[in-house]
Formats: sequence, structure tokens, C-alpha cells
Amino acid sequence: MTKANKVPEPSPELIQRADDVKRSAFALAQTSDRQRKQALHSMADALEGSAEMIVQANSEDLHNAEEAGLAKPLLSRLKLNKEKLNKSIQGVRQVALLADPVGIRQLYRELYEGLYLERVTVPLGVLGIIFESRPDAVMQIASLAIRSGNAAILKGGSEAKATNKAILDALHLGLNQSDISSDSLYLLTTRSESLALLRLEGVVDLIIPRGSNELVRFIQDNTRIPVLGHADGICHLYIDNHADLPKALAIAIDSKCQYPAACNAIETLLIHKDVAESFLMIAVPKFEAAGVRLVGDETSNLYGIEEIATDQDWSTEYLDLVLSIKIVSSIDQALEHIRRYGSRHTDAIVTEDESIAAKFLSSVDSSGVYHNCSTRFADGFRYGFGAEVGISTQTLPPRGPVGLEGLVTYRYFLRGDGHIANDFASGRKTFSHKDLSQ
Amino acid sequence: MTKANKVPEPSPELIQRADDVKRSAFALAQTSDRQRKQALHSMADALEGSAEMIVQANSEDLHNAEEAGLAKPLLSRLKLNKEKLNKSIQGVRQVALLADPVGIRQLYRELYEGLYLERVTVPLGVLGIIFESRPDAVMQIASLAIRSGNAAILKGGSEAKATNKAILDALHLGLNQSDISSDSLYLLTTRSESLALLRLEGVVDLIIPRGSNELVRFIQDNTRIPVLGHADGICHLYIDNHADLPKALAIAIDSKCQYPAACNAIETLLIHKDVAESFLMIAVPKFEAAGVRLVGDETSNLYGIEEIATDQDWSTEYLDLVLSIKIVSSIDQALEHIRRYGSRHTDAIVTEDESIAAKFLSSVDSSGVYHNCSTRFADGFRYGFGAEVGISTQTLPPRGPVGLEGLVTYRYFLRGDGHIANDFASGRKTFSHKDLSQ
Repeated sequence: MTKANKVPEPSPELIQRADDVKRSAFALAQTSDRQRKQALHSMADALEGSAEMIVQANSEDLHNAEEAGLAKPLLSRLKLNKEKLNKSIQGVRQVALLADPVGIRQLYRELYEGLYLERVTVPLGVLGIIFESRPDAVMQIASLAIRSGNAAILKGGSEAKATNKAILDALHLGLNQSDISSDSLYLLTTRSESLALLRLEGVVDLIIPRGSNELVRFIQDNTRIPVLGHADGICHLYIDNHADLPKALAIAIDSKCQYPAACNAIETLLIHKDVAESFLMIAVPKFEAAGVRLVGDETSNLYGIEEIATDQDWSTEYLDLVLSIKIVSSIDQALEHIRRYGSRHTDAIVTEDESIAAKFLSSVDSSGVYHNCSTRFADGFRYGFGAEVGISTQTLPPRGPVGLEGLVTYRYFLRGDGHIANDFASGRKTFSHKDLSQ
Repeated sequence: MTKANKVPEPSPELIQRADDVKRSAFALAQTSDRQRKQALHSMADALEGSAEMIVQANSEDLHNAEEAGLAKPLLSRLKLNKEKLNKSIQGVRQVALLADPVGIRQLYRELYEGLYLERVTVPLGVLGIIFESRPDAVMQIASLAIRSGNAAILKGGSEAKATNKAILDALHLGLNQSDISSDSLYLLTTRSESLALLRLEGVVDLIIPRGSNELVRFIQDNTRIPVLGHADGICHLYIDNHADLPKALAIAIDSKCQYPAACNAIETLLIHKDVAESFLMIAVPKFEAAGVRLVGDETSNLYGIEEIATDQDWSTEYLDLVLSIKIVSSIDQALEHIRRYGSRHTDAIVTEDESIAAKFLSSVDSSGVYHNCSTRFADGFRYGFGAEVGISTQTLPPRGPVGLEGLVTYRYFLRGDGHIANDFASGRKTFSHKDLSQ
């Protein structure tokens, strides 16, 4: 329960550099939509111009990583060939096309004659971004930051060191061809700097971790800066006794198998006892054919699940082709299970009974609560946000899949002509509080 | 930099009680606007019915506090006579009249034929409220909690023990005459319980401290639960060389003197050198007449400020009739000062030059940035929110004065008819992402 005790103090040099980034953020916050769009295209152009160098740097990283015996999946995430790079550059241009999240007037109100209150979205300031392996994340997150008017301090995995440096060099070249200072993107290179980033409260406004659950949990436990992210994604699918079973089967298979390593894949299937036998009779062979290892409670063993689930199973995010199954006697028992083991990410029900569905949707306090569809839809792109900054399992907004709007905050502007509070406190004047058209 | 190390583990009994509150929060979250309104009136009725008892309990507390030698201002905050109680009860009925913050649809989108995404506001869950002395805060905050569908665990000052208990007894009586469980409001009575509240992450969703800066800072430093509040309110007023000086004077006097103990009162006046002499010539006697002690930088000493300000002054929230004054040579120097010493609360400029005003408004990253009006307008009631839950100096939303909307979050509901993600991943289906009318 101690925070940040594993984290070193930032060095004077880091503080100085962070301060430069903060200064550039103030300037960046004042750029226009057009300027930020242009900067993104300029960044994309520079990445294209530096493509050879980036791919070359990546070969180096790959070579070193292979020598160091990095695991296959990590190697494949590290790899950035011409094709993947082109896709990332295309991604940068797509971010340029997204609607500007800055400068949106959320409230416009006359408080009194001549005294006008506005609430307008503004950038957060400086983002701290920590990610593992994937160098394509650098380009995506850098473009989201600039698009939303934020500067960023980035820390990538050491195995992608050369690639990240080559990418940052290109991004700086691009920014130099724009109205935005290249100080707006700063790459940390050592592990101790990366840790010290967690201590830059007052400079860094939001930390976005991209990586394993362990990374996210470590960061959450070691900083006072707000963190946008989630450690666990323990999602449930409840098959009600009024479920259409073929629908339930398709949704269950999709929710587990379509991409099991995703946070929005289900870990646990809750099945109403009245349909457990008939459902599992068809489902078990299907899951087995898909390579899913099934573990279940004692009742489910009667219906062909051989492995017994431990208490540990209900609270484990497998991120793999493993599914735990529990037979429940009522929706209330399903709700109780979700309340106890869920991580407020995404949970779904399959039922044809509208009132049961309504009960589920109003009772489960996860950021996504679904009826008759796959949990795999919990995603910023699928929600139509155009980008995904992260998925948050916090209760407070922003929660769930977060698009560009997660990178802005708001400011109240009040404009008067000599108005003072005492006139209202004394009763000489009375507030009108008249909302004006946006 | 260690968090919560001064905070004891919650006792099994507290965990049990907190769990009861959590359960009641789930039920409360599903009540209708009408039910919550009715509950508030029922609470108000019960307070009226118990008025004698509450005032009696307060006399007891006052008696004990006097015996213990409590300071005069604290005694006056502790005092709850019939009149103050009636005003509070009226306040409860006013909260009932506020628009329901729950169930507001923020987004409604067709993702594909038959697959509909909604984003709807929902209560946060359980609020943890810690306040000092003022027993009227119990009634206000309890009614805001119930209005927004949240349960609350409350901890008041020990000097108001009998009063708070009498109020809670009445509120429970009221809730018993409503559809809302009286478990929804739970009063902690011992100091160790109050500390343990800070450890109830997973149960308590938001902590709202009401009290001294020290209390707020202690809480922020000792919990992982999000905290709605602010420690410092170091607000600045900058008088530009293009200021209308009579306007500037009226605004400066109001911002400092109208209620100096408020967080939105100014601590520092920044004055452009070109108008410093003419402004201070009139302002110094006015401030002195109002009982304001003035401290200033060396230049200001030339214009009649006798006391020299120390570096400490620029970062002190006086909450009193003290004002620090600095002469600056440009708006940039003023901005630099605010950036260094401000607490991102509320800062204002007085100028008749629109472009200078625009520069100030876009450059100062405080939750409130004002032009030609008093900083004292930074207040939920004055903004027209109908209530103020707190003022936040965080960068992330909600920031600034926060009304009922700070007590809700949102949930994504997705309703389909067997839709699976694989159909979209494989390209068989394409998202429509069509926004539907709200």
C-alpha cells in the first residue's frame, strides 16, 4: 500500500527536459485545428522519407533481440517491416482526419447581462506514454497526442531502442516542417528515466500504459498521476434460461475465440441450470474443436466438462483459449458472481426475455453491458470513435473504450465588464442563468 | 511519497457495513427519478419532525465544545439552531427539484443493422464523504448523494458527534418512509474508522473531503480512491496596462475582500508596470481601509507597499485579508508567474484590449480563466448548477466547480440480436456507425 517507493526521484536533467516539454505543450495548446492536421501530415511525410532508416534500425533491434533470445511472439510484435510501417503511416494520416476534440463548447450561459460563461474543451497538457515492444504504437500514440493538442513524453521497450529512436527522429523532422515545436515529443531512453516519469506530477497530466497487465498494475501502484488503462479484463457471458441457444453458442464462441488475447474476450461463461445440459451438449464439442480448454464447477462436470475450476479460475484473466464455466440457478446468482469476480470491463447476457435483459443491463456496473451480442465489440474503433486511446475500467469517466475525447479536458471562461460578486451576494443583482444557443 | 501508510486496515466490521452500503447502492442505482425525489422530501419531513431533537443534540455538542475550549469560528460553524436547520431542510427540498443527472443518454448510435450502442449516465455507486465541524453539510451532501442515486458513507467531525447522529437518525427515518434503503447512508463515528474509509477501494468510488486544506491534502496523500476536491486555491488577478482602472479596482477589491476565506478569493495581484503607480495610488488606501494587509515585491514598495513579499508569499493561500502584489513588465511575465505559483483554480485579467484578453484566456490552464470580472464567481451556484459538490483543481474532468454531474458516470449499453465481432473482422459485414437522434 505504499506508492512510488520503488520509483527514483527524477534527475535534474529529466526535470529540465520535462519542463521543455511542458512549455511546448502550452504553445501546442494554442494551435489551430489546421496547424495540428498539417503537422500530422508532415510527420507522415517524414516517416515516409525515413522509411529505409527506420526499417534498417528495426533489423538491428530484431537481430539483437534474437541474439538475446527474445520469445517468438515478442519478436513478431517488435518487427516493423516496410508493409507494417506503411500501415502505421496511413494510420497517422487517418488520425489527421479525425474531428478536432479541442475547442468544443460544452456550455454557453449568460449569468447576468454582459457576463457570459463558456465551457470549452482544451488539451490535457503533457501525456506520459509507456509501452512495451511494439514500435508501431509510437506512431499511433504520437499522432493522437498531437491531434488533440497534447505534448508527450514516450518510453518504449529497450528491445525497440533503435527503431523508436529512428521513428522519433523522423517525427521531429516532420514537426520541424510544421508550426509545432519538436520539443512536443520527447523519447525517454533509459529505464530509470522511465520510472522517474511516474514522479513527474505537476508536469505530466495523464499516464497511458500500453502493455501487459503487470506493467499497468505496476504503474497504477507507483504514481499519483492519473492513469488511463486497465489491469484486468475479466468479462462474463451469461446464458439465461430464455436464451436462443444457437445465438448463445455463436456469441460464446466469438466472445472467447475471435481473439482470445484481447481484454474484451470472455473468461467465464455463466449458464442457467435449465439450459445448461442442452447448451453444453452442443457447445462443448464446438469449444473443443476450437482448441478451448474448459474448466467448470461441479455441476458442469455432469455435462461433460472434465476439469474442475478452482476459486482462482474465476478471477484469472486467461488471455488464452481457456474458459471457465459455472452453472447458476438464477440471474441473481449470475449477477452476484459478476459482482464478486468481474472487473467492470464488459459483461453480456443472452436472453430473449426483455425484462430479464433489462434487469441485467441495469444491475451490472461495468463500463460495457451487452445484450445478445459479443463482448468483443468493446473497442473504440468498433464504437465508431475513429481511434482508441485505451480502455479504462475505472468507475469515473472516461471509462470503457476511450477515443480522442479522453485526451482533452475543459476550462471555464467567464467574460464580463467589471462584474463583481458582491452585487449578487448583496441582492442588488440576480443571476439570469440563461442558456444561450451553442 | 508513500500512500496510505498512516492509514489502518479496515476492521472486518467496517468491511461488512461498507458491503451493506454497496449492496444498497446497487438497489438505489435502479430507482426512478420520482422515487429519489420522494425520498428527499421524506428525508426533509423527518428532519422537520426531529428538529427539536437535533437542536437539542447540537446544544450538547456546543456545550462540550465550549468546555473543551474550541475556537470561536469553529463554534459558530458547529452551531445548528432552529433557523439554520430550517434553511438546511429547505436545501434538501431544493436538491429534490434539481434535474435528474441519472439516465441521460449521451450517445445513441447504430453500429450495424440491429446493433445499437447507447451511452447513459449512471450513479457512481458509493461516495465517501469526510467533513469537518459543520453539521449542515451532512444534510446537504446526503441529499446530493441520494438525488444522484449514490449511497454514502459519511464521517463528520467528532465535535459534532451528537448532532450528526441525530441528523442521521432523522434521515434514516425519512428513508424508511421511501423506496430507498436506509443502509444507503452510513455514519462513521470513530476516527480510526474514518481513516480506514480511505482504504475501501473497490467499495467507495469517490471521496469528497469538505474541510481545511490540510484535511484535503492528507486525504489525497493517503488514498487510492479518486478524490474530488482541491487543496490549494491560489488565484491571481492580472491588471494589464490596457485595463480600465476603476473596473480593475472594483474587481480587485471584490476578488480579495468579498469573502477572503473562500478558495476563489485572490492571493496575488499582478500589475503591469505602466499602470502600477496610478493604480496603486488609489488602490492602496482602499485596501487598507478594507483592512487588507499588503505585501509586495521591491518595485511595488516604490508605490507605497511597505512590507516586502517573500518567495513563500507567492505560494501561500492566505484565506485571509492579506494580498501579495507584484509588478510585472509584460503579460508574459504575468503568465509565467501564474504558471509557476498558480494552483489551476481561477485566474483573471482586467484589460480593455481584446487580443491581450484572448492571449490570457488561452494561455492560463486553470479550470476558470476570467476576463474583466471577479474570481469570486467560481462557484457551482453562481455558474447555475443548482448545487456544488466541490471544486476540483485536477486537470482531468470534472474540474472547476462541480455540480451533480460530478456524482455520475456512464455505462455503454450494446443491444444486438446475435451479432458477433468475427463478421466484421472478416469483412463480411461493415459498421454503419450511424448516429441516431437522441
